[in-house]
Amino acid sequence: MAYIDDREDIISFALSAVASLLKKYNVDPKDVGRIEVGTETLIDKSKAVKTHLMDLFAASGNTDIEGIDSKNACYGSTAALFNAINWVESSSWDGRLAIVFAGDIAVYEEGAARAVGGAGACAMLIGPNAPLVMEPVHGTHMANTYDFYKPDLSSEYPYVDGRLSNGTYTGALDKCYATYRSKMARRFPAAEPVTMDGFDYAVFHSPYGKLVQKCHGRLLYHDWLADPTLPLYAGLTEEATASFKDTPVEKTVSDKAVEKTFVGLGKKLYQERVVPTLTCSERCGNMYTGSLYGCLASLVGGVPGDKLLGKRLAMFAYGAGCASSFFAISVRASTHEMFEALDLEARLAAMEVRPCQEYVDAMNLREKTHTLKDYTPVGSIDDLFPGSYYLERIDDLYRRSYGIVPEKTVAA
Amino acid sequence: MAYIDDREDIISFALSAVASLLKKYNVDPKDVGRIEVGTETLIDKSKAVKTHLMDLFAASGNTDIEGIDSKNACYGSTAALFNAINWVESSSWDGRLAIVFAGDIAVYEEGAARAVGGAGACAMLIGPNAPLVMEPVHGTHMANTYDFYKPDLSSEYPYVDGRLSNGTYTGALDKCYATYRSKMARRFPAAEPVTMDGFDYAVFHSPYGKLVQKCHGRLLYHDWLADPTLPLYAGLTEEATASFKDTPVEKTVSDKAVEKTFVGLGKKLYQERVVPTLTCSERCGNMYTGSLYGCLASLVGGVPGDKLLGKRLAMFAYGAGCASSFFAISVRASTHEMFEALDLEARLAAMEVRPCQEYVDAMNLREKTHTLKDYTPVGSIDDLFPGSYYLERIDDLYRRSYGIVPEKTVAA
Repeated sequence: MAYIDDREDIISFALSAVASLLKKYNVDPKDVGRIEVGTETLIDKSKAVKTHLMDLFAASGNTDIEGIDSKNACYGSTAALFNAINWVESSSWDGRLAIVFAGDIAVYEEGAARAVGGAGACAMLIGPNAPLVMEPVHGTHMANTYDFYKPDLSSEYPYVDGRLSNGTYTGALDKCYATYRSKMARRFPAAEPVTMDGFDYAVFHSPYGKLVQKCHGRLLYHDWLADPTLPLYAGLTEEATASFKDTPVEKTVSDKAVEKTFVGLGKKLYQERVVPTLTCSERCGNMYTGSLYGCLASLVGGVPGDKLLGKRLAMFAYGAGCASSFFAISVRASTHEMFEALDLEARLAAMEVRPCQEYVDAMNLREKTHTLKDYTPVGSIDDLFPGSYYLERIDDLYRRSYGIVPEKTVAA
Repeated sequence: MAYIDDREDIISFALSAVASLLKKYNVDPKDVGRIEVGTETLIDKSKAVKTHLMDLFAASGNTDIEGIDSKNACYGSTAALFNAINWVESSSWDGRLAIVFAGDIAVYEEGAARAVGGAGACAMLIGPNAPLVMEPVHGTHMANTYDFYKPDLSSEYPYVDGRLSNGTYTGALDKCYATYRSKMARRFPAAEPVTMDGFDYAVFHSPYGKLVQKCHGRLLYHDWLADPTLPLYAGLTEEATASFKDTPVEKTVSDKAVEKTFVGLGKKLYQERVVPTLTCSERCGNMYTGSLYGCLASLVGGVPGDKLLGKRLAMFAYGAGCASSFFAISVRASTHEMFEALDLEARLAAMEVRPCQEYVDAMNLREKTHTLKDYTPVGSIDDLFPGSYYLERIDDLYRRSYGIVPEKTVAA
């Protein structure tokens, strides 16, 4: 998993990602009319991370940029994306581009959960005529749950009920997929009923790999329930399904027979439809709000040329607490420019693997220093990519300032 | 100003306001497809206030309700409102209503700033064919400022630079109004140039009254700069404007002569256009995200019958850090149903004035208890309106549960 010491924070993540996006896609800062931030890495209860991003636009004189921060666990990114797209479709749209930033620093106190940490961020450019087109139907499920939350404001660490969290994620997927299917049927009554065969890829919020594989199986279970005559289920014997075929869906959330049956049945499909989306999360660990869009980046950054053209992606967003949506993206033009800009394979390969002790030292350093003011970080900037922003100083009034890692120059 | 003890929190505010809205407007919980929350009263870094509101919809089985929390100081409400409206105008709109909740508990540590505290909340129903119609043009200004922020996560109190905050507010108004005017000119090239005479009312984010009066004057200053031949400025002598007429706008933000001249000139207009919007903030103090919409409620709740029909409102939203927008609302149908539902005069009159010491005791109680878990609040529920939600308990895992003040019954 990726980790950071005291040299980075969510603001430096955001500055790095958005500055990189502007540069790679050659965006004139004046052409941006909205920036949305999704994060659950809060270092201020009032001031938005978005306000810090305005520093990237100050030189251009463009201060007319709507949007602030969206918050609910890992779902903030999806809320931000929906908000940015809705703006482009609204009467208040002024013809300019939107940017969505999503990122988090996922840290856990010492113990079993620490292994599901991670860190990562991404930025997305939103506007008309995009290669990736959001389809209009969202199947959403929200509820009041205490599966994962951060009520101890003085700590970086969450309160987690791991078992409840997995169950809530799975139950939310059930509800979202059901709502998505019924809304699709209402909106497009002439179309074939929704099944996972209608998607070439399935992109999940991916806290860790095993949950994703289970949930891909879960969607096949729903397809089977809706139509057991589909070819994929031809080999399912009466005997194999006897233990659960009459059990209500909500009672099978942690049913091992359902899980085993449909994960097994979906093994090959999982390799084809899901594994290509997991490159970032395998390398960076849990990126919280960045997770789902890191998975999207893994797909786009892993497939060169026009090979994604015409493909259709299922997307499942989840944030504890809980908020979740199932929706679809259609690829309507070549994604090769994004493949080139992402340069994902090389960038992930350039991340060094470090000894566990260095990780533990970094966690201890953060734990000791993350609430301090009048503080100058001690972590090295040598490990950061050129062009990255880093935290330079927190002054005696908690005001933060940032530096930029110089671009590498070749010695004469 | 309004204050609370440990019996209320931002979640109880939200439950009270949204439950009341559903009841007063007889909204079927199934007809709600989006709820947006704007607040800077954060009690969890991850879990959204929005998720708690889902409890109000659980009985109906409606969990398909998009939207989470928007955060940047007092601007969260306006971001939430824009998001809700954009959703209704988007291709993903499913035909249902949206609700925007905005509210805050504004508390300051002992000292001069404590007097600009307050508390309050409101909920708004968003959908097609509304009496109050948002116009499409927004003039927005955002920047990275440290005028007011909450970096000490363990405290309820903000860091404030009062002088900087006033200057930032005023400078933001300058920029927003200028951007609004130029965007209006581009969008409606045949229309008359924007002046404040185009508005019947001016509704400001109102942390305290004096700032609002100054800023109303400030808008007249801008109108004069744009066209000194307008009738309102006929009496302005060369002498009266000599000290500032050639000064660049950004140098006059705290210019006393500009302030005096245009506040003086606008005195009568201020009474007509602004004072009717200040009823809530005069009684409740600073409502942060709720402030601007409390001002809107003051107007709608203060004018019976169809008297607002055809009127046009200027709106100025500001949140420190900073985020700000100038936009307009047109009244296209009678607001009498809202006047009746708000029942504002009676409800404000029913608020009791309490001795200062009780307020200080309540602040001390909050200060001592606001980070506790395994805690049962001690504040009385006798002072809360019937039907209000209150905090019943915070358990040993910081999970919060709520009760409802019984509706009053007449003794047999």
